[in-house]
Amino acid sequence: MKKIINEAGNVLEEMLQGFTTVNQMLIKRIPETSVIVSRKIPNQVGLVSGGGSGHEPAHAGFVGDGMLQAAVCGQIFTSPTPDQILEGIKAVDSGQGVLLIVKNYAGDIMNFEMAKEIAEMEEIAVEMVVVDDDIAVEDSTYTQGKRGVAGTILVHKILGAAAREGKSLSELVVLAEELIPTIHTIGVALSGATVPEVGKPGFLLEEDELEFGVGIHGEPGYSKQKMLTSNEIVEEMLTRLEAVTPLTKGKQYAVLVNGLGSTPLMEQYVFFNDVATQLGAKEVEIVFSKVGDLMTAIDMAGVSLTLLEIKSADWLDYLNQPVTTVAW
Amino acid sequence: MKKIINEAGNVLEEMLQGFTTVNQMLIKRIPETSVIVSRKIPNQVGLVSGGGSGHEPAHAGFVGDGMLQAAVCGQIFTSPTPDQILEGIKAVDSGQGVLLIVKNYAGDIMNFEMAKEIAEMEEIAVEMVVVDDDIAVEDSTYTQGKRGVAGTILVHKILGAAAREGKSLSELVVLAEELIPTIHTIGVALSGATVPEVGKPGFLLEEDELEFGVGIHGEPGYSKQKMLTSNEIVEEMLTRLEAVTPLTKGKQYAVLVNGLGSTPLMEQYVFFNDVATQLGAKEVEIVFSKVGDLMTAIDMAGVSLTLLEIKSADWLDYLNQPVTTVAW
Repeated sequence: MKKIINEAGNVLEEMLQGFTTVNQMLIKRIPETSVIVSRKIPNQVGLVSGGGSGHEPAHAGFVGDGMLQAAVCGQIFTSPTPDQILEGIKAVDSGQGVLLIVKNYAGDIMNFEMAKEIAEMEEIAVEMVVVDDDIAVEDSTYTQGKRGVAGTILVHKILGAAAREGKSLSELVVLAEELIPTIHTIGVALSGATVPEVGKPGFLLEEDELEFGVGIHGEPGYSKQKMLTSNEIVEEMLTRLEAVTPLTKGKQYAVLVNGLGSTPLMEQYVFFNDVATQLGAKEVEIVFSKVGDLMTAIDMAGVSLTLLEIKSADWLDYLNQPVTTVAW
Repeated sequence: MKKIINEAGNVLEEMLQGFTTVNQMLIKRIPETSVIVSRKIPNQVGLVSGGGSGHEPAHAGFVGDGMLQAAVCGQIFTSPTPDQILEGIKAVDSGQGVLLIVKNYAGDIMNFEMAKEIAEMEEIAVEMVVVDDDIAVEDSTYTQGKRGVAGTILVHKILGAAAREGKSLSELVVLAEELIPTIHTIGVALSGATVPEVGKPGFLLEEDELEFGVGIHGEPGYSKQKMLTSNEIVEEMLTRLEAVTPLTKGKQYAVLVNGLGSTPLMEQYVFFNDVATQLGAKEVEIVFSKVGDLMTAIDMAGVSLTLLEIKSADWLDYLNQPVTTVAW
C-alpha cells in the first residue's frame, strides 16, 4: 500500500479536520463528532445522509443549501454509530422534521433506524428512505437485496431541491418512494480498493482484467472478463440496465457517470461519450448529465453508470437547480 | 495499460465530445476545433488558456463566467497548434483585447506567441503572460527555466475576476506580473502517468518509493526516496517552498492542494491537514484554501502543493468571488 497518510487508524479524523478547514465557509463540524453540517440550517425539513467513509466527496461534499443539511461520517467502509446520527438529526431539525437518506447496507439501516427511534422519543419527527440502485447483484456482502451506490447522490439532489422549495416531511417521503425505484446503477472495476487499515486491495484483478458489478466496498460483481474497450463496456452495462428500465425511443433520462476513485476524468468523459452515442442510437433522450468522482470507493479504478428515468418535469427542474456545496 | 478508452489515438476527440455534451449549459465547442468557449462571451478582456490535454479538468473545466472565456486543448501532453489558439482568440475578443495565460513549456510558448502575432495582424490586441510556478527544478524536459503547473489555476481565477470587474488588458498584464512571482508549487509523485498512445508509465517507482519535484508530464524531479508519511512529505515540501517564499509569522497565504489524477480526496485532505498544521505552527495564516483534482497528470498518483502569498486584499477577494465553471 502506498498512500499519502500518517497512521492508518487516524485517516478519518485527519481527513475530517482537513475537509472542515478547507470548506469552513460552507460547512462546519459538530465538535467532538464526525458530523458535518451546513453553516446555515434553513427553516425546512432537514435532510441527513451518511454512512461509512471512503466514498469522498460523498456525503459531506453534498452538504449545503439545496442538498443535505448534515452528513454523518463513519469510519472507513463502516456505518456511523446511532449516537453520531442522532447528533446530525438534532442539529438540522428546525421543527419540520428530518428525513434520513440511507444506502441499503445492513449496518447503516440498523444504526440509522436506531437513531430515528431515539430522536422520535425526543419528539423529533423522523422518516427514513433507503436507496438500493445497484442492479448488479441481489444480496451482497453487507446487503440484503440490492446495494445503494452512486444514484444516492441524485436522491440528495432532487429531495434537497424539493425540501428547499418547502415540501413537508410526508411529501418528501412520497417523492422519494416514486423516485428511488426509477434509479438504476451498475459499476465496473479495473482494480480493487485498499482500506488503509487493511493495507492491501480487497480483491485483485490481472493487468488485462475487469469485473462488472463490483460494489463500492469491493463487494463481488457478476463477471470477471478480459479487458474491453469503453464502447464494449458501455454496451454490456446498458444491456443490463435495459433489463430493468426501458431504453426505448422518446424516454427521458438523467445520466450520471461516476468515477470510483483513481480513474481520471479523461476516461470518464470517453466513457460518457459512448453512453451518449449508444443511448442516442436508441433514440433515448439524455435531458441531464453529470460526470465526475461523486461516490468513490477509496482508490478503486473504474466507473459506475446511473440512469434515472425522468417521470416528472419537476425532477428535472430539481436536478438543474443551483446548490451551494463543495462537490455537486 | 488498463484504461477505459477505445482507440488510443482518438481519446482527445472522444473526451472533448463527452465534455461538450455533459456541460452544454455552460460551454460550447467551436465546430471542427479543439477549442472550448464560454456560452456567453462577456464584454470584457477575453482570457484564453490551454495547452496539452491530460490535465483534466484543466483547462476546459475553468471556462465560464469569472474565469476563462476559452481553453485550447492540444493532443495529450502536446501543445495546441497556432491555428487552434487563433480560433480561441477570435472567439473571445469583444474589442477589448485578449490575454493569453500560458504555462512555461517551450512548445506552448512558441505556439501561443505565433497565434498572438497572427491575431495582431488581424487587428486584435493580444498580450501573453507565462506562469512558471514549479520551484522543483530549473530547465526540464520541455522547459527553459521553471515549469508551469497547478498554480496556473489560481492565475485563471484571480485574473478572471479582475477581467470581469472591467480591468483593461494592460491592467491585467500588470496584475499578472505582480501575481505570478508570488505563486510557488512543488509536486510529489507516487506513480508515473500513462499516455494512452504510449501504453506504459513515463517512469516507474517501486511500491515503497516516491519522487519529489516531478512535473505534470512526468518530467524528472529532484529526489527519489523511500515512502514517507504525509506529515514528512509536507515537511520536505514546505522546506523547499520556504527557500523561495517567506513562511514567517503573520504572512497570509492561499493554499492549493492539487491531486495529480489517481490520488483520492481522502489522501488529499489528510495531506492538506498536515499543511495547515505545519503552517499554523509557523503562525502563517491560510486565508484561502482549495483541495481537489484541478491540474492532473492523467493518472499519476501524487499531489502538488501551491502557496500564493496574498500581497493585496483584492487578490483574496478575487479568489473568493463566485464563478460559473465546470470545475472550480
